[in-house]
Amino acid sequence: MPSTTTSDYKTLSLAPLELFCGKLFQSYGFTETESKEISEIVLRADLYGIESHGIQRLIRYHQEIFSGAVDVHAKQEIIRETAISAVIDGHQAMGQLTAAYAMRLAIEKAQKSGIGMITVRNSNHYGIASYYALQAASADLIGISMTNSEALCVPTHGKRAMLGTNPIAVAAPAEPVPFSFDAASTVVPRGKLEVYKKNGKPLPAGWAIDTDGRPTEDAGAVLDAIINKLGGGIAPLGGTGEVNGGHKGYGFALIVDLCAGILSGGMTSNHINLQPGHIGICHFFTAIDYGMFGDKSEIKKRLSVFLQELRDSPKADGAARIYTHGEKEHEHFSNCMASGTISVNPKTVLELKEIAKEQGLDFNAA
Amino acid sequence: MPSTTTSDYKTLSLAPLELFCGKLFQSYGFTETESKEISEIVLRADLYGIESHGIQRLIRYHQEIFSGAVDVHAKQEIIRETAISAVIDGHQAMGQLTAAYAMRLAIEKAQKSGIGMITVRNSNHYGIASYYALQAASADLIGISMTNSEALCVPTHGKRAMLGTNPIAVAAPAEPVPFSFDAASTVVPRGKLEVYKKNGKPLPAGWAIDTDGRPTEDAGAVLDAIINKLGGGIAPLGGTGEVNGGHKGYGFALIVDLCAGILSGGMTSNHINLQPGHIGICHFFTAIDYGMFGDKSEIKKRLSVFLQELRDSPKADGAARIYTHGEKEHEHFSNCMASGTISVNPKTVLELKEIAKEQGLDFNAA
Repeated sequence: MPSTTTSDYKTLSLAPLELFCGKLFQSYGFTETESKEISEIVLRADLYGIESHGIQRLIRYHQEIFSGAVDVHAKQEIIRETAISAVIDGHQAMGQLTAAYAMRLAIEKAQKSGIGMITVRNSNHYGIASYYALQAASADLIGISMTNSEALCVPTHGKRAMLGTNPIAVAAPAEPVPFSFDAASTVVPRGKLEVYKKNGKPLPAGWAIDTDGRPTEDAGAVLDAIINKLGGGIAPLGGTGEVNGGHKGYGFALIVDLCAGILSGGMTSNHINLQPGHIGICHFFTAIDYGMFGDKSEIKKRLSVFLQELRDSPKADGAARIYTHGEKEHEHFSNCMASGTISVNPKTVLELKEIAKEQGLDFNAA
Repeated sequence: MPSTTTSDYKTLSLAPLELFCGKLFQSYGFTETESKEISEIVLRADLYGIESHGIQRLIRYHQEIFSGAVDVHAKQEIIRETAISAVIDGHQAMGQLTAAYAMRLAIEKAQKSGIGMITVRNSNHYGIASYYALQAASADLIGISMTNSEALCVPTHGKRAMLGTNPIAVAAPAEPVPFSFDAASTVVPRGKLEVYKKNGKPLPAGWAIDTDGRPTEDAGAVLDAIINKLGGGIAPLGGTGEVNGGHKGYGFALIVDLCAGILSGGMTSNHINLQPGHIGICHFFTAIDYGMFGDKSEIKKRLSVFLQELRDSPKADGAARIYTHGEKEHEHFSNCMASGTISVNPKTVLELKEIAKEQGLDFNAA
């Protein structure tokens, strides 16, 4: 869901920013093609209005490359393969490169054999989950993308973070906008807490719990506790306890770890980022040729009609519009492309300048 | 999640109840084998402690058989098929029979080709989603089971129910208890409201909204409004609005309708049960041979270890235990089997006596 920007945000031109990102990744040792792909995926988050996964992450990627957690020269390896499946070892390559590669493989398999189901170990943060699900939708397939991540979700009745935000993304072709669902298994993703911390705002009630298991509004304290493994974390979707279904969000997070962490032979969230220089994030991708189930244009049309019925249904008092998933991101993207700009948090601008200086690049030229 | 029974519940012996259910379904015209399968699936809900989907549903099945919505003599038909997929037309057969048949087909395909993905149209209420996911887990596969249902979930920013409770179940083999997740995409399933209505209890806050879009605690009024299509309904998982992720529950419900309603060529939730004598519920099943991804015993062991790590993690203040999904149901099942009894709502006993009388059977002998 696109985040709300405040008035002190800087408006930056897209074209020089793309160039800067490309040069930045080349400065780390990635090839021109690789740098372009990473930049595209990172910037896509900002274009969708998902600030938490956009260029505000570059400082963390920068640190991960220098810590050795991200291996600039690693190549993905297919460990095991059938006509409809594969296990990939990312060998600590950049998460975006491994994920896009894995989904391309899933797409190829789906196009030949109906389904491609790929599980990935030893990867890194891959950005927005929806990017890869939409990769499949662009190839006229249904796409699924999941990733585990460093533990920050506290299981129902627990007080230690044991599961990642573990997002699940599903995309399907539809008109006029593809269906594109992308949701953390927690009430909110970690990136949202980072944005609240950056903006110095208190967290809404029910999002996070402190090291003693009590509700807290202090984004900074929660993030510090997560980083230092002190306890507490973010509540699963449905909140704490079982009354409003917190055990369901906990279950969705667990399913992501089953598909990504367990099936890949990699790590589950509770073991991620515990060793210096090795994060160990795992992903899961599926592409489905929905033509197995009927005429594709007919199915696409039926989905488009259904989405329109949802949008056209009566609005709650005070609500102007019912969205279907992916619409907000699509509109944010269109607006950015029309203006040729994106809004950037001033703190992110400072971080980018710092990174640029370290890499001998000129960010002001961006 | 097993429901809490109150002290006025009757303790009934399991063996005569199984016999009664078998005879009841035979009295409608189902074969002995079919009657046994339906009874097993219905009673399994009570054995798991999921009263809402157990024998308290028999009165509704009874009505649906007499209204013609359930066709006792219908046979499932495979409309379209590949090595890894099928589309089944249920032709309004009993939902339990069609669902178990579809999952058997998914299991066969997974055993031969790695995956079986089956979508089903023109079915009926199929009971607990987890039954079918566990069918796959019993065959040492990962199982997925979803069903759409009559609209009672209000999309985010809407005020008319447009989506069903649309449960998602995922099961995977593990020791000592299989992982078995089964969650409505709403805060709670419809059956939970029926149990609150039956017990005359007010609903917890945030579960349901009335015909004007306002929060309500009146389970009876919400159910009446749903049945009479007056507006309002149950909130998606995450609640109303977007702050706590209500748009995520709305999205999961939509994904179920994509997989079940759209891919099958059947109806989406908002069109279900609008025509007399035709309900039109659709299902989706997947079985996955996880041996595609590695040594099965190794994967099963790794999952079992992960589930144990979750259960062993530090408890919230005042919490005695962290459950993994399926444990509560497994323990309820074991207790019932050990005692040879289940607890039944006295109102359900009255309904069963009424049905028995209509069908010329003796419930007191149960």
